[in-house]
Formats: sequence, structure tokens, C-alpha cells
Amino acid sequence: MLRLYSYFRSSASYRVRIALNLKGLAYETVPVHLVRDGGRQHGPEFRALNPAGQVPVLDDHGQVFTQSLAIVEYLEETHPEPPLLPRDAAGRARVRAIAQSIACDIHPLNNLRVLQYLSRNLHVDEAAKTAWYRYWTEQGLAAVEALLAADLRTGTFCHGDSPTMADLCLVPQVFNARRFDCHLDQLPTVMRINEACLNLPAFAAAAPSRQPDAE
Amino acid sequence: MLRLYSYFRSSASYRVRIALNLKGLAYETVPVHLVRDGGRQHGPEFRALNPAGQVPVLDDHGQVFTQSLAIVEYLEETHPEPPLLPRDAAGRARVRAIAQSIACDIHPLNNLRVLQYLSRNLHVDEAAKTAWYRYWTEQGLAAVEALLAADLRTGTFCHGDSPTMADLCLVPQVFNARRFDCHLDQLPTVMRINEACLNLPAFAAAAPSRQPDAE
Repeated sequence: MLRLYSYFRSSASYRVRIALNLKGLAYETVPVHLVRDGGRQHGPEFRALNPAGQVPVLDDHGQVFTQSLAIVEYLEETHPEPPLLPRDAAGRARVRAIAQSIACDIHPLNNLRVLQYLSRNLHVDEAAKTAWYRYWTEQGLAAVEALLAADLRTGTFCHGDSPTMADLCLVPQVFNARRFDCHLDQLPTVMRINEACLNLPAFAAAAPSRQPDAE
Repeated sequence: MLRLYSYFRSSASYRVRIALNLKGLAYETVPVHLVRDGGRQHGPEFRALNPAGQVPVLDDHGQVFTQSLAIVEYLEETHPEPPLLPRDAAGRARVRAIAQSIACDIHPLNNLRVLQYLSRNLHVDEAAKTAWYRYWTEQGLAAVEALLAADLRTGTFCHGDSPTMADLCLVPQVFNARRFDCHLDQLPTVMRINEACLNLPAFAAAAPSRQPDAE
């Protein structure tokens, strides 16, 4: 049995949920509340599973995997159909680069632990924290828009006409951007692809609101 | 001809330089100065190459690739020997997770654009900026240490006895940590592996001080 340690609002968990659904893999959700009790990801039980104290963690019959994109690559290698990466090396590199533009350039700056540091250690007020959030999201998604809009390989989805690893990063990032009222008017390609994804059951079922731990 | 748009002190560029050297691939360095003239990565010429305005960029006979780990995966697929990922899916997932623990959890918080935002937008002083840098580096490397120390698959290098994608992330991160006088005493495994890597010519030749644009 596949077991996913997840938090409904964690966008890294959201990515893996989409991948599992696209692959048609059944899994059990183990909710890890990132706020309650000072954050259950910091407890000794969870730290034994992942010393980094982060979700998602995938347990595949006792083997433990961390880091959302490493988990998605693992699922791709162990369950190749339907593919989440194109066949050609250049296309694969493009899809990974789009995914990493989100996973390395946007999301790490805006996750919970960073926002907490801004408040607690740097005494940044709410308005400046929101400005920080929007700055990195808007700048980062503008770069993604440029990558997508300028390339003929962009199709219904980020790369061609079936969803890839890039799309499963894009949708959770747009979800976060909307939550923080970021400006999304300048992102026609991103938003068009986001809508196309949300029409697929695999994406819809992975949404935060549809998780067992949703609040 | 392979052409690498690089900055001597960029740790993402440093990763790709190590990969190119490990693969024995000759390449031409095109230096992009990230500070001079307000940052040449922001100029229209470079933005046309990479809308995100970031190094490294790899040009492989006119095909352009961005994002360091996507580039390393591309090199792995197009030049499989010597391998930078193990053969088994679980091992590959572990190596990618270690690499991403650095590339997604540490480095994005400490790169130039973020430090500039802290100074310019949040008016954070030098001491608090250094504390920020050290906090994310020390906490992040402690998680990497835990991943390495607790796992029998750790060998001379992060995974077994030949260098992988994990090692080419580890070495530039330790380089940065030293530059900012981070505490490294609690990281015996990380530091042992760092030394083993630096003894290899492929790693040594990729060092910032040995680049054509070194200052």
C-alpha cells in the first residue's frame, strides 16, 4: 500500500497527490498538521520518518521517500504509464526546468517556515509579509509565463497535450497565488493551462478542499 | 560545442560545472556578471536566453537549457557515462531527494536576489541578514547530515562510492556555508564527503576560484 504523509494546504503534497491520481495509484493519506501543536512535522515521530520535518513523505511498502519532485520521478520510474515526462531528452529537460522554476524559485520563498521566520525573527508586519509573498509569486510566475508563451512545444498543457510534471507544479502554485490575491492578469498562458488541468479529475481530486484533513 | 553561461560564485552554475567535468565534456564558459551594471542577468540580451534572468544556462548546439538540476538530468540522459544517478529507482529517488534538500530547501533562500530583497525592501541590517543566511544553511545542512548519517547507502560519497547528483549539490553549498562562516561542526558526514569530493579533479576544476571570471 502507498501511504502519503500530507497536509491539505501543502503545495508540495498537492503535487504528489496529482501525480498519484494521474498514475491511477490508490493511496492512503496520513495527515500531518503543519500548524497545530506547533507543527506536528517537528515532532520526534515525524522527524524519524523525515529529518527535514517536511511533507510530503511517501511510504511505498516500508520504503520512505522525501522531496516532492524526487517522489514524482520515482513514481514515473516505477509506474511509467501514463508518462509525466516526454520521451525526448530536450523535452524532458524543458518540463523539469518549468517544474523547478516553481519548486526552486517560487515555492521555497513562500512556504510556512519562511513566513514564520519573517514574522518571528525579522518582525516583518503582515503587509510587508504579503508584499514578499506576492513579489516572489508574481515575478516567478511571470518567468514561467515567458517560458510557456514563447515556446511552440506549449500545448493544452505546459508541454504538449497531456499533463506532465510541469503542470502538477503549476496548479498548486496558482492555487497559492489566488489565496494570497496575487496579480494574475499578465499570465494568460499560465491561467489557460491551469483551467485545462482543473478540468481533469486527477487534478480536481487532489485539491486541498477535497482532502480528508481539509478545514 | 557546449556553452555554459555561468558566474564564478553562483552555486547553481558550480553544480553544472562539476557535472560537465565528471562527464568529461568540454565546454566554453560565457561569464554573466550577476552584480556589475545592476546584474547582467537582467539585461535584454540575457533575458532573451532565459526569461527568469538566472544562471546557469546551457547552450547545446543552439538548444537552450535552464535550471541546474534539469540541466544535470539532461546531461545524464544524453551522456550516460559515468552515471550521476544509481541504477535502482529507490536509490535514484534518494539521490534526487538529497540534491533537492539543497537545491529547494537551502539555496533558494540564500541567493543574491533574496539577500538584495532583505536589504532593499525589508531594510534588514547586515547582522540580521547574516543570521538569516546561517539559519537556513545550518538547519538545511543538519537535515542533509541526518539523511546521510542514518543510511547505510552512504559511502565515500552521498550514495555509494562514486559521485552523484547529490554530491554536486553538496560541495557548492558547503563552499557557500564556509564563505558565510556557518557552523559546520555538527556535520561530520557532510564534511567528510565534501573533502572526498574536493580531492577529485572534476570537483576541484569547477571551484569558483578556478573560473575565468573569478575575482
